[in-house]
Amino acid sequence: MIEIQKTTESKIDKTNFDNLAFGQVFSDHMMECDYKDGSWQKPIIRPYGPLSLEPSARVFHYGQAVFEGMKAYKDKDDRIWLFRPEQNFERINKSSARMAIPEFPKEYFFEALEELLKLDKDWIKKGFGNSLYLRPFVIATESGVSASAAKEYKFMIICSPAQAYYSGEVRVKFSEKYSRAADGGVGFAKAAGNYGAQFYPTNLAKEEGFQQIIWTDANSHEYLEEAGTMNIFFRIGNKLVTAPTNDRILDGVTRKSVLKLAEENNIEVEVRRVSVQEIVEAARKGELKEMFGSGTATVINPIAGFGYKEQKFELPNMDDSYASFFKDTLMKIQYNETEDLYNWTYEVK
Amino acid sequence: MIEIQKTTESKIDKTNFDNLAFGQVFSDHMMECDYKDGSWQKPIIRPYGPLSLEPSARVFHYGQAVFEGMKAYKDKDDRIWLFRPEQNFERINKSSARMAIPEFPKEYFFEALEELLKLDKDWIKKGFGNSLYLRPFVIATESGVSASAAKEYKFMIICSPAQAYYSGEVRVKFSEKYSRAADGGVGFAKAAGNYGAQFYPTNLAKEEGFQQIIWTDANSHEYLEEAGTMNIFFRIGNKLVTAPTNDRILDGVTRKSVLKLAEENNIEVEVRRVSVQEIVEAARKGELKEMFGSGTATVINPIAGFGYKEQKFELPNMDDSYASFFKDTLMKIQYNETEDLYNWTYEVK
Repeated sequence: MIEIQKTTESKIDKTNFDNLAFGQVFSDHMMECDYKDGSWQKPIIRPYGPLSLEPSARVFHYGQAVFEGMKAYKDKDDRIWLFRPEQNFERINKSSARMAIPEFPKEYFFEALEELLKLDKDWIKKGFGNSLYLRPFVIATESGVSASAAKEYKFMIICSPAQAYYSGEVRVKFSEKYSRAADGGVGFAKAAGNYGAQFYPTNLAKEEGFQQIIWTDANSHEYLEEAGTMNIFFRIGNKLVTAPTNDRILDGVTRKSVLKLAEENNIEVEVRRVSVQEIVEAARKGELKEMFGSGTATVINPIAGFGYKEQKFELPNMDDSYASFFKDTLMKIQYNETEDLYNWTYEVK
Repeated sequence: MIEIQKTTESKIDKTNFDNLAFGQVFSDHMMECDYKDGSWQKPIIRPYGPLSLEPSARVFHYGQAVFEGMKAYKDKDDRIWLFRPEQNFERINKSSARMAIPEFPKEYFFEALEELLKLDKDWIKKGFGNSLYLRPFVIATESGVSASAAKEYKFMIICSPAQAYYSGEVRVKFSEKYSRAADGGVGFAKAAGNYGAQFYPTNLAKEEGFQQIIWTDANSHEYLEEAGTMNIFFRIGNKLVTAPTNDRILDGVTRKSVLKLAEENNIEVEVRRVSVQEIVEAARKGELKEMFGSGTATVINPIAGFGYKEQKFELPNMDDSYASFFKDTLMKIQYNETEDLYNWTYEVK
């Protein structure tokens, strides 16, 4: 079904897999599929390389663009695994629908992933933490700057080898002024513009010594929502608390996996609005044991402290942290090192 | 200063200037300026043509992209005019700052505009309503999908000949559910993602027989804000009312010109929050005389009616409409057919 043009010269021998910055190096092949005349054309896998687009292409002007983040893992027996890929498939189409982009056919998505991963399987390195990061994305390619939904698009998948990385201790700032998303807006979608809009406030937070922002609701800035590239969990005593998803908050695949694992492991969970005030008070009383983020890139990212207005709070070092438990459990499933009780893994063969 | 590579074959003779769809045809040349190694490089004007970008270029993934809309006009003596171009210059840099894009030097902006317009002057047709639409824009070009501000950008100006167009009668829907921008967000910026996010709700409104949406505040949907590509004015009795700009609403150049003209012509204006309820009641009582949008592309766009929830309202036909007065006055200034009392015009020579 998919047309495949193989590279004549692999870049793999020139790639230093022991020193990979995230998302900088790409594998030998990529998938490309054009939408025109009302339908998705035949997908093609070809050597990774530049795109040629008119300067008037809609994506440059009106930000009609959505993406996903996924990872492929290799187990000890060289078998290749994806983690809940149907979730990413469903979500990219939800994102597309909100951005007036036509939905992509399921069979194209999975066939493209499988062919691409078989072709570039040597780019997936074994070892806990190593993976091939997959970036499906869609852009509006139609030429012309009239402000309306494009009639031509390109769906692509590019692949970047990734290592387990220790990003240093992460401290987050609770947003008091800037916002990520509006009610009735596109915050739930992985729309490109949601991310670019966060860079400036995040740069300001970095100047204050924080690495990321926890976004609060735009109306009152009283409720904690998500971190832009991660959903956020709070452990108060032994209870895990996280915000419900809504039209401002991304429905994270790692987030829902954490919720399932918590339920199955008898960890008490509350999915409800989480107020800044509650977290600040819990931190003051020593009841806030942990905060961590969940997302495809980092799996689980423990948070060492947070800032709100002029105050800074440090979190305790936990020996038996929930963060470690979820990270370890999730990764064992992802790398096929434990039984997959929930039918989350998907073998590429 | 600017390097100029002239086209060897003009497309102008193949262009039908009597039948131009907005933003579909581009003139012979474009301006391109790259940002790298911490500074804007030498601008270059070259024949309009495709860009080559890596599929991992940040603009495709994180929507770091902003733009402006301007027009060049030709008067009866073949002199070329811009309208308040310093406003567009200042605004693109405000948009850039919010999107963590480096600001562009003023001298590059004006020199590029002037050289480009002198080179492509034959693309500016005389006649009230004809113009060359100018689209300055900036995109993040750096390769690599890590979610942070890019270190490489491209600033471009492309030019599209435009005719006066009658877009048919415009009816608008007051938004009850979807939103354009959050407090603390990027609504005030001409950020690409703001536009793509509007296409889906606008398509839904089109299915109900409306051409555009008037966005309301995301918190309560009780206050009318702007139309996405236009600021909005209401005439109640003989008083003109419009929403103040804030971090959700674009500070339109045409909007501020209308406000100035109103003041100078003794038209009573109130710049304040405008509630949906007030406009619905004014329409019911017959006190709502006019609604119109203001923006570079359409100058002034009269609105024939509006819908709110299940109700539809038609506006009266006015002989002496404010919309006609402002449109006529603005265009006479833009085309150098009247005295420029406010120092708004800028001659390219």
